[in-house]
Amino acid sequence: MTNVNTEKLSSARFAEATDAFVEVFTASVDFDKRMAAQDIQGSIAHAKMLAKTGILTDDECAAIEQGLTQIAGEIERGEFSWSIKQEDVHMNIEARLTDLIGIAGKKLHTGRSRNDQVATDIRLYLRSEIGQIENQLNCLQTAILDLAEPNAGTIMPGFTHLQVAQPITFGHHLMAWFEMLQRDRERFRDCLKRINVMPLGAAALAGTGYPIDRALTAELLGFSRPSANSLDSVSDRDFAIEFTAAASLLMMHLSRFSEELILWSSAQFNFIEIPDAFCTGSSIMPQKKNPDVPELVRGKSGRVTGHLVSLLMLMKSQPLAYNKDNQEDKEPLFDTVDTVINCLRAYADMVPHIRAKKDNMYQSAKQGFATATDLADYLVRRGMAFRDAHEAVGLAVRLGLTTGRDLSELTLAELRQFSPLIDADVFESLTLEGSVASRQHIGGTAPETVREAIRTARQAMAAGS
Amino acid sequence: MTNVNTEKLSSARFAEATDAFVEVFTASVDFDKRMAAQDIQGSIAHAKMLAKTGILTDDECAAIEQGLTQIAGEIERGEFSWSIKQEDVHMNIEARLTDLIGIAGKKLHTGRSRNDQVATDIRLYLRSEIGQIENQLNCLQTAILDLAEPNAGTIMPGFTHLQVAQPITFGHHLMAWFEMLQRDRERFRDCLKRINVMPLGAAALAGTGYPIDRALTAELLGFSRPSANSLDSVSDRDFAIEFTAAASLLMMHLSRFSEELILWSSAQFNFIEIPDAFCTGSSIMPQKKNPDVPELVRGKSGRVTGHLVSLLMLMKSQPLAYNKDNQEDKEPLFDTVDTVINCLRAYADMVPHIRAKKDNMYQSAKQGFATATDLADYLVRRGMAFRDAHEAVGLAVRLGLTTGRDLSELTLAELRQFSPLIDADVFESLTLEGSVASRQHIGGTAPETVREAIRTARQAMAAGS
Amino acid sequence: MTNVNTEKLSSARFAEATDAFVEVFTASVDFDKRMAAQDIQGSIAHAKMLAKTGILTDDECAAIEQGLTQIAGEIERGEFSWSIKQEDVHMNIEARLTDLIGIAGKKLHTGRSRNDQVATDIRLYLRSEIGQIENQLNCLQTAILDLAEPNAGTIMPGFTHLQVAQPITFGHHLMAWFEMLQRDRERFRDCLKRINVMPLGAAALAGTGYPIDRALTAELLGFSRPSANSLDSVSDRDFAIEFTAAASLLMMHLSRFSEELILWSSAQFNFIEIPDAFCTGSSIMPQKKNPDVPELVRGKSGRVTGHLVSLLMLMKSQPLAYNKDNQEDKEPLFDTVDTVINCLRAYADMVPHIRAKKDNMYQSAKQGFATATDLADYLVRRGMAFRDAHEAVGLAVRLGLTTGRDLSELTLAELRQFSPLIDADVFESLTLEGSVASRQHIGGTAPETVREAIRTARQAMAAGS
Amino acid sequence: MTNVNTEKLSSARFAEATDAFVEVFTASVDFDKRMAAQDIQGSIAHAKMLAKTGILTDDECAAIEQGLTQIAGEIERGEFSWSIKQEDVHMNIEARLTDLIGIAGKKLHTGRSRNDQVATDIRLYLRSEIGQIENQLNCLQTAILDLAEPNAGTIMPGFTHLQVAQPITFGHHLMAWFEMLQRDRERFRDCLKRINVMPLGAAALAGTGYPIDRALTAELLGFSRPSANSLDSVSDRDFAIEFTAAASLLMMHLSRFSEELILWSSAQFNFIEIPDAFCTGSSIMPQKKNPDVPELVRGKSGRVTGHLVSLLMLMKSQPLAYNKDNQEDKEPLFDTVDTVINCLRAYADMVPHIRAKKDNMYQSAKQGFATATDLADYLVRRGMAFRDAHEAVGLAVRLGLTTGRDLSELTLAELRQFSPLIDADVFESLTLEGSVASRQHIGGTAPETVREAIRTARQAMAAGS
Repeated sequence: MTNVNTEKLSSARFAEATDAFVEVFTASVDFDKRMAAQDIQGSIAHAKMLAKTGILTDDECAAIEQGLTQIAGEIERGEFSWSIKQEDVHMNIEARLTDLIGIAGKKLHTGRSRNDQVATDIRLYLRSEIGQIENQLNCLQTAILDLAEPNAGTIMPGFTHLQVAQPITFGHHLMAWFEMLQRDRERFRDCLKRINVMPLGAAALAGTGYPIDRALTAELLGFSRPSANSLDSVSDRDFAIEFTAAASLLMMHLSRFSEELILWSSAQFNFIEIPDAFCTGSSIMPQKKNPDVPELVRGKSGRVTGHLVSLLMLMKSQPLAYNKDNQEDKEPLFDTVDTVINCLRAYADMVPHIRAKKDNMYQSAKQGFATATDLADYLVRRGMAFRDAHEAVGLAVRLGLTTGRDLSELTLAELRQFSPLIDADVFESLTLEGSVASRQHIGGTAPETVREAIRTARQAMAAGS
Repeated sequence: MTNVNTEKLSSARFAEATDAFVEVFTASVDFDKRMAAQDIQGSIAHAKMLAKTGILTDDECAAIEQGLTQIAGEIERGEFSWSIKQEDVHMNIEARLTDLIGIAGKKLHTGRSRNDQVATDIRLYLRSEIGQIENQLNCLQTAILDLAEPNAGTIMPGFTHLQVAQPITFGHHLMAWFEMLQRDRERFRDCLKRINVMPLGAAALAGTGYPIDRALTAELLGFSRPSANSLDSVSDRDFAIEFTAAASLLMMHLSRFSEELILWSSAQFNFIEIPDAFCTGSSIMPQKKNPDVPELVRGKSGRVTGHLVSLLMLMKSQPLAYNKDNQEDKEPLFDTVDTVINCLRAYADMVPHIRAKKDNMYQSAKQGFATATDLADYLVRRGMAFRDAHEAVGLAVRLGLTTGRDLSELTLAELRQFSPLIDADVFESLTLEGSVASRQHIGGTAPETVREAIRTARQAMAAGS
Repeated sequence: MTNVNTEKLSSARFAEATDAFVEVFTASVDFDKRMAAQDIQGSIAHAKMLAKTGILTDDECAAIEQGLTQIAGEIERGEFSWSIKQEDVHMNIEARLTDLIGIAGKKLHTGRSRNDQVATDIRLYLRSEIGQIENQLNCLQTAILDLAEPNAGTIMPGFTHLQVAQPITFGHHLMAWFEMLQRDRERFRDCLKRINVMPLGAAALAGTGYPIDRALTAELLGFSRPSANSLDSVSDRDFAIEFTAAASLLMMHLSRFSEELILWSSAQFNFIEIPDAFCTGSSIMPQKKNPDVPELVRGKSGRVTGHLVSLLMLMKSQPLAYNKDNQEDKEPLFDTVDTVINCLRAYADMVPHIRAKKDNMYQSAKQGFATATDLADYLVRRGMAFRDAHEAVGLAVRLGLTTGRDLSELTLAELRQFSPLIDADVFESLTLEGSVASRQHIGGTAPETVREAIRTARQAMAAGS
Repeated sequence: MTNVNTEKLSSARFAEATDAFVEVFTASVDFDKRMAAQDIQGSIAHAKMLAKTGILTDDECAAIEQGLTQIAGEIERGEFSWSIKQEDVHMNIEARLTDLIGIAGKKLHTGRSRNDQVATDIRLYLRSEIGQIENQLNCLQTAILDLAEPNAGTIMPGFTHLQVAQPITFGHHLMAWFEMLQRDRERFRDCLKRINVMPLGAAALAGTGYPIDRALTAELLGFSRPSANSLDSVSDRDFAIEFTAAASLLMMHLSRFSEELILWSSAQFNFIEIPDAFCTGSSIMPQKKNPDVPELVRGKSGRVTGHLVSLLMLMKSQPLAYNKDNQEDKEPLFDTVDTVINCLRAYADMVPHIRAKKDNMYQSAKQGFATATDLADYLVRRGMAFRDAHEAVGLAVRLGLTTGRDLSELTLAELRQFSPLIDADVFESLTLEGSVASRQHIGGTAPETVREAIRTARQAMAAGS
């Protein structure tokens, strides 16, 4: 394994040697080597197309394929010697190829440019990573369903404004998380449609004079079609931005899940137990059990949104076609991919081990006048206009606050002073169970409805949507 | 027209009067009244569903519909008196309704909450505005096709790194813009799938105990389906973020078009003339003709990305379900809609009047060794490996630079010193016309290929995709 | 009051009438009229300088000053007729001035351009608004000190990771907020140094051939000095970005205060009561009391960070000197100013009325092993290495967890099984009062230390720093 | 060299072993080891203070200092074995210390926590890096002055809206860059005031019961003072955000310089030559010389603004005091430091080698009616009001445009048709030299004024401001 050709690309044109610092500053191989497998995959397909169209001989093509396969092995085994002198992943591999197979290696670059080559590599890379993301989403969504199912009837307080609002079930709450992730999955799929278009053949910016067959290359690489305009092909980074926007939304969702897990793990809420494996201790406070994983995931949401801003600002005002600025697209993209996959995995590992403290949830729901809306609805059913009922219940709540009692603890006489429409059957409406069970329409929190939602979700996942 | 009920919502529960400043600070009516038509549209559908399910009588429903229709007229005619005391668009309209029709007005809010109501309004609003955006996109894309068609053969220099790279046609360059906008259109459509889901019926967060029929309301409002989880329904703002991300990409594209128009309008490039109507002069320099519209549009790209950041940061870490923070979703969203529509319109108006200065474009392409790649390809066709050809041409370019001549101006003898493979027919490869015409594969810059791309684009637009 | 000159600036050069939509699209008067007072202030100083240097006569200067003063009055009284045709605040005022005083009005623009004029206006505007911000900061900081003082000894749990960590005092916690705001104040002051430099005289970009005296104008307007380079003067928007960055930090601080107020107001924490005037109710849940003001302020933090991104992206890659893009600097800046002032005011009004629920705070601190660190420190003082003590206390906490008791509720025998160094005096270390009182170094939470910190803070504020 | 203690921190409290993935996911040592030198520096000072206050013995302190010094050497020589098991830089070093010196090592952590320790490390690190940034700023500013000086009289067109506006000198243009960097330097210095405050002693969040002397530690570490509030000390990341905001402004400036260098290097402008060492070629187009360094620097501006957004979003809504989220502060900060230093260095290396193509600049200035303002000023000096003169010159420019001549190429008779005030001496006003020389006030473009500005700048730099 040697470090081949160390001379600078296009050196014939240049009178001065490149300043060593500039060489490091402008090189991308340190990070773009991550796409080596895709670069080789693309080059093999390109060579096959060149052979099919008669631009290369079959022998040349065979030599290229063999050489590239060998290089792929070297890279996988960590034996490949990457060189800053060769600037990027493409030149490193091509130089090694020429080293291995001679002049045929120099012919590989016929009819393409690094501009369309790198665009192709990124798209192949991202297509593959979206597959990974979808797998992790599946794991996490399945974990959520598995936790929601036994908790479809577990009553907890539902909050708005972080104030107790109405009783809901823990399973229902978890299914809200499921829905968010379902949209994330859809967005990644929609994004994939625009990723899976092949820029190869756009060459530097104008296409090439060789009689290439782009439809063939696209087919070999599994792209849905070749791109429609060569300038656009080499300058387009929409797909990276759209991907990062979808990732930002996903990370925002995880930040919300995290916030809730952190709240619920606090001594004050005390609704759940996060397993020890996902927490750490303190260097100074021996009693602490910190929800590290949710906190770290919450923190990482800013990271991905930051990358999104980087990419949008990167592309702002760039004239066509390719500019060196675009080299800056890769690091935010790679880090976004890593962050998303790791955070999903951490959550998918953790969620199955979350333990609901059902008694605490229930007791918490019993406080805070969670069934006040039910009392209003009771009054409406008896003929009061909703706004008037709202007013009447407001007065009842004030009495409860003043005397330190829940609505269900007021006497019938006390309740009737707010409306003569109230009868003894009102107390049925003021139980948590009754309240929850009554919300049985699509999307409601009734245990049966939640179970139905879980069944529907499992079917949708099984159907791959 | 009077300003009705000035008392504070839920006043029964509150002992203190609201501080006047806080009232203004927390009110949203100044901006959310923009959704009045959608609020009324949603309320009418809600009332119809309530009547159909027996929760309201038909008479009540008729009174509500009549009252709301009258209010819609008052608002359209500018006769409606908006009140800060009524906080938001919803309460203003409901208060006026009660003023008009009495107790039936108070029943309208049965089985819903402002939390699901506002989410419904925004979705209806955004669905409608995406229609407007699509119209403007159509206009602009058509304008681009109309300008590209007569310029399918207009030769200009193609740039990478803002250095002359290879000759292309102006029509081909314009078609790169078309492709970007085509992706924007697709993204808005994909986004619309997730917008067009109905939250109404989620009520405050848990659904409602009334026997509502959400499928019916969804049908009446043209939504594809009711949302699947009530908590998610009132807390979800994904659609606003996804929309703003799509808008950020669109604005980034417009910033790139703008950058090019500004460059091309400079005395140094002098490739195009932007009509006077889209330029302004200087308060101090009488000779100036400034490309104001492209500059302003370029500047507005930051504005929309800023809104995207606002919305992502807004939603970060919010626990479920609804929090008051979400009131902050509307202003960035509305401004994004306005900005996108106005910028598209300005461009759609301007593009048809852009005049290509064909001679200047052609002369500029003739300089800068634009056909160097063609020389390399010539050598490759004669058997030289691409990388070696690249090296040989680099030396020829250096000779050209040193002696101040283009490649086509070097003698055959001079050219042959770089390779004996070069013959007299080489000069055919060094013309701009020959270079351009040879790039005739899918996505290439050959005039015929560009015309074909324009035809395909027109068909796609006619087919509505 | 009439709307004067409706013809387009520099119309002589233009052959076509401006498209009406473009006129509205490119006009800025709707928002930049907010700087009318500063525009007039700057123009009067400019006229005085022109008179002093002999470029205008004293009579012309007097007429200009009188005319501008009249216009200022018209604007203040709402009698001024703003016109889109006049594009911006500068042209509107100048047109009215010429209307009032004739030819002398046309001479006012001698030796300046709108490019330096608008830069001067924004700086004057921002300088003035920073004064308002500092006032509001003073009010809020004073409110915090006034609330901290009686609570210097109010014990509450201190949290890390939202887990109870160690006991602190409520006054100490509030003083953390004070410190954040103190840094905000310093940042605005540092920013002011760079705002308070005068661009006027840079003219369009190159300065002017008139013998102007920029030092004089700077003195008249209270600027610390004229700017040093004319190109930089008209293109620089650093000050707007730096201001918005400082504002983003401030808003981030307020988002943290808000998060804590919201948490503490929840039924689960129940540490404080926010007065009714800063809360609102629910349209559906009669019992709710929602902390609207903190929630809204929390939400507005994203808004200002969004503006910061807008401005940075706006300026990215702009070639010198002035470009129309810069018109986009004003709306984010104005909205940032409004948001900051309103949020500070809302907090300054609210904080004095926050009521600490001392018993709940105390009880909450007693749970959660808050004095575990104190036990470790006890062991260290008796000779155990800190890391070993940490380990020993961890085991004691586990026993407490298992048996449902706080450390202070374990028996001496139980405690001694973790270390024979423990004696009966250990229980003194396990009281909240003892724990808090022991942290008496600079920055510590001991009540006396907190009171000292409050005294120091009051002195610093009185000294104006 | 061994990898010591592999057990998990605080393991006594935990029943389950940490999941291996979570261990990697939550560990920070891979990136925070960059602060190893600062961690050791802080620990030595802490140990000295502990000894001085009697909390450690002098022998223990000496052992600690000796052990840490040895570790520092191991790290510098690359012999230190970092372990993920030890989570972070702090635990890795402490574990190794205990390995080396035994029980005294375990005592080092007395009276501090990782929360205040890491905050101290980052501040020490950033203080040091700001020194590096200031050095690079010095180099670049000096390079700019050295290039501006011989070009103080080099005439080029000054642009607004990328249209030729008025003649300026290249030296003057460069001094605009100098001014931007001067503000950057000031901002980093102001930021340093807030960085250079010591959190150490805040311990976990509340301070410590040990009789520590924070003023002494601050003095030993060169901090200006200890922080004033312990909660604030461990939760404050303002300094990182403020630093990144200053860096974003600097990078925005570099993006503007880059944009101009790229424009000026284009064949169409052709104002400058960037040396080969800062450019690269193309893999497909042998003639290309791409301005890679400016392009890459321009692209990196988005990167740093992205980090700024990450950090602001990271801190949004975090309750006090320390949360694990804050671990996410380091990577954006470190990358910002690297990016700023590398970009400054690349520019400082490149600027001295930029070659002005003076003839091209001059010829470009002669076109575009650059002295139109001078003609207007000529008319004003002869008594015409500025706005009228502006109108008259507009007509003259239109004649020039129509007939393809510059103003100086119109005949006297032609010029007089726009105003009888014009005499033969007008042609003196229409030369580039005359125009430039007349702008001789502070900040103007007259060569003498530019030379004076350069002298002033050199003095300021020599004086260290």
